[in-house]
Amino acid sequence: MKEPKSLFLAEDALGIVTDLYQLSMAAGYFGQQMHDVATFELFVRNLPKNRSYLIVAGLEQALHYLTHITFSSEAIRFLKRLPVFNRVGQEFFEYLKNFTFSGDVYAMPEGTIAFADEPMIRVTAPLIEAQIAETYLLSTINFQTSIATKASRVVYAAQGREVVDFGTRRAHGPQAGVLAARSCFIGGCRGTSNVFAACKLDIPAVGTVAHSWVMAFENETDSFRKFHEVFPDNTILLIDTYDTLAGARHAAMIGRKLKGVRIDSGNLPKLSREVRRILDAEGLQHVRIVASGDLNEDRIDDLVRSGAPIDSFGVGTDMVTSKDAPALGGVYKLVEQEHDGKVIPKMKFSEDKLTYPCKKQVYRITDKGDNFVNDVIGSENEDVGGIPLLIPVIKTGKICYNLPAVHEIRRSTSKNLAHLPEPYKRLTNAEIYPVTKSMKLEEKRIEAEKMLRGINVPLGKS
Amino acid sequence: MKEPKSLFLAEDALGIVTDLYQLSMAAGYFGQQMHDVATFELFVRNLPKNRSYLIVAGLEQALHYLTHITFSSEAIRFLKRLPVFNRVGQEFFEYLKNFTFSGDVYAMPEGTIAFADEPMIRVTAPLIEAQIAETYLLSTINFQTSIATKASRVVYAAQGREVVDFGTRRAHGPQAGVLAARSCFIGGCRGTSNVFAACKLDIPAVGTVAHSWVMAFENETDSFRKFHEVFPDNTILLIDTYDTLAGARHAAMIGRKLKGVRIDSGNLPKLSREVRRILDAEGLQHVRIVASGDLNEDRIDDLVRSGAPIDSFGVGTDMVTSKDAPALGGVYKLVEQEHDGKVIPKMKFSEDKLTYPCKKQVYRITDKGDNFVNDVIGSENEDVGGIPLLIPVIKTGKICYNLPAVHEIRRSTSKNLAHLPEPYKRLTNAEIYPVTKSMKLEEKRIEAEKMLRGINVPLGKS
Repeated sequence: MKEPKSLFLAEDALGIVTDLYQLSMAAGYFGQQMHDVATFELFVRNLPKNRSYLIVAGLEQALHYLTHITFSSEAIRFLKRLPVFNRVGQEFFEYLKNFTFSGDVYAMPEGTIAFADEPMIRVTAPLIEAQIAETYLLSTINFQTSIATKASRVVYAAQGREVVDFGTRRAHGPQAGVLAARSCFIGGCRGTSNVFAACKLDIPAVGTVAHSWVMAFENETDSFRKFHEVFPDNTILLIDTYDTLAGARHAAMIGRKLKGVRIDSGNLPKLSREVRRILDAEGLQHVRIVASGDLNEDRIDDLVRSGAPIDSFGVGTDMVTSKDAPALGGVYKLVEQEHDGKVIPKMKFSEDKLTYPCKKQVYRITDKGDNFVNDVIGSENEDVGGIPLLIPVIKTGKICYNLPAVHEIRRSTSKNLAHLPEPYKRLTNAEIYPVTKSMKLEEKRIEAEKMLRGINVPLGKS
Repeated sequence: MKEPKSLFLAEDALGIVTDLYQLSMAAGYFGQQMHDVATFELFVRNLPKNRSYLIVAGLEQALHYLTHITFSSEAIRFLKRLPVFNRVGQEFFEYLKNFTFSGDVYAMPEGTIAFADEPMIRVTAPLIEAQIAETYLLSTINFQTSIATKASRVVYAAQGREVVDFGTRRAHGPQAGVLAARSCFIGGCRGTSNVFAACKLDIPAVGTVAHSWVMAFENETDSFRKFHEVFPDNTILLIDTYDTLAGARHAAMIGRKLKGVRIDSGNLPKLSREVRRILDAEGLQHVRIVASGDLNEDRIDDLVRSGAPIDSFGVGTDMVTSKDAPALGGVYKLVEQEHDGKVIPKMKFSEDKLTYPCKKQVYRITDKGDNFVNDVIGSENEDVGGIPLLIPVIKTGKICYNLPAVHEIRRSTSKNLAHLPEPYKRLTNAEIYPVTKSMKLEEKRIEAEKMLRGINVPLGKS
């Protein structure tokens, strides 16, 4: 009988966790002896729907990847069998066997606020190494950035009330649930229900009780009493299994030691008020009300504005899938190449997919109160004022950056958001934060485009 | 310096890849000596937006999980430190140390077509075991089912033209890319660009070449020629880096050995026609045109209807994130419990979240041509005619089912879809496939609800 496969990623196979064309191009560069040092930049062309900024996340896992790319012998055997490699010589596979990433990487630290067109990661390495890394870097940064951004909106809507991540069951697989838990924490959540994530990241594990607990006993009162017996100091009860208000009364019977109740369905503004009234009438003003069930930033915003007496929001599906904008369209583009000691600018100008050439830096201009005023995307080491956001994180293949704990990243996010003026972070109709390109960069683009068009479109634009 | 964490799932820690409340309820059941055998069912209450059916997927990874749930000593140490467990006795942690799943599982085989309310998986096990499994089972089945379903729509739109998965870079992390590749294949794609997935699943790895290859050479013609040198039998060229029609002419210079060209941007109906004309004028009728770039079932449907001469569609973002419906709302509900040799039906009737009690089976009624007519959700072993869709896959903790290869699952999907009449699979305005509950099941619900309301809502519905 065939054993079921986990399909888990494994550290010794990271080399092939990529698109086939990265490896065929690698074989091509190898065959053509193209070992030029190239620079690629990872950025987002347009912010997704309903987003006015991005919270950069995923760098730690990207750095893990870059420092662990290897090709197992199983992987190499598989590649050799692929028809596309039938004319590729043995030397290439020998090269893969000894592959390590040896390049330099600049990146925005996690928790940085980024905007469209701004490089979040810049990789400078021999062409093959930089090329192979594209797929994994994109999926890591795209996903975590997308979720940290969404979470920050949910936390913003909650206006200081607690938000926790309950989303693993709806994440894109169990592994995505773990990465989402990390990103939600970075975005400002207080904790996660995902125990594995809490354990690995040393962040708060949170949770209450499910309907099945209530249903597993003969009646609700019994189920509440028994829960309290086992968890006398942590009695948070789910009260909507049969009838929410009856549930509130049953929960109140626990008395002073009751810590909280959770409502997971129904008309939350109305139910939370009535439940609060029932609890208060029993002198249980200290008992917290947790709300959950298909929440997102808009529903939380409505609840908060309506004055619903909710102390904590358990948010799942919408947050961990970034449901209203479930994919971040990050791209990774070649911007320059060193050939025979000469730097050659690279760009592409296919319809609506123009890219800017050359190594870039993002400069953030702030006012006296450190509030963000505008960003300038310029060349590396250009003097346009402002704080350069890309910092060195890998030097010749080795991490040269003190990786912060997620707690620290969460604080950076919060601090950065505090410095982003209100109009740029409104949930709807936010203003567009000003990002411009430096004069020098525009000149470089015009020059490079002229040169490349001359060579590649001899018949003029058709 | 801190080492970067991969956060990869590990086989020895699967026990804590779950929501905290599953483990606190487990401690509660343990403390209350509730070792009743319980049955939970996994189903979707409502089909997502734009979906008229589901393609079940993810069972193999669910079975891997159920046969590998363990708690490492690191995991147990972490749990002991959590405040919520401060009054939980040592016996519970001893129990976890020796934990294995010992229950029975029925499931719809992967590739089965399912509808709302139909149990896709049914778990019967001691309460604690069945409870702990909820989160992981849901995230596994929710995600893969969601993507296999989306992929089947994309393949349907392509009307026999090839569809391949190019999505890893936009999936929810690199692991989600691997699971998406599997689900897309099940849904009918011919292959994936994800090499790791292709290797582990033994399915076709596909790919062409990226803009960076074209940009890495001094000019496009040179880049094409050099690619052909390395891959003389697999020359598929990307022609839209600078100017698509100039690109087509440069590609045509390769001559008879050219295998295909890819267009990744611009007006595809117009460009594909003009590119076809350029190729045909050079006698290159055999050269295939591959299209990519933000494709989904609707855009492919338009392209196919407009007669665009495209032979293969590379689909990414929209397919691997199921972008228009990025979360499947699967739930996992307690439906019955054996207590002192008596079977007690369980259900919940909170507002808009009613569940049906008792172990169920799904019966598919077909006509003489094996076409699907309607489904009946009934009790287990009920005689309502039709084919029972849930089959035993785990018996007392051991797999009792011949796991099919993904190739076989892909064929089942295709066969099942062929038997689902056209009106139920139209991309838009599909008819609703008839699914009813058996009389017997309705009776059981009424009886159980009466009994439970009597006990739990003594003051009447408030």
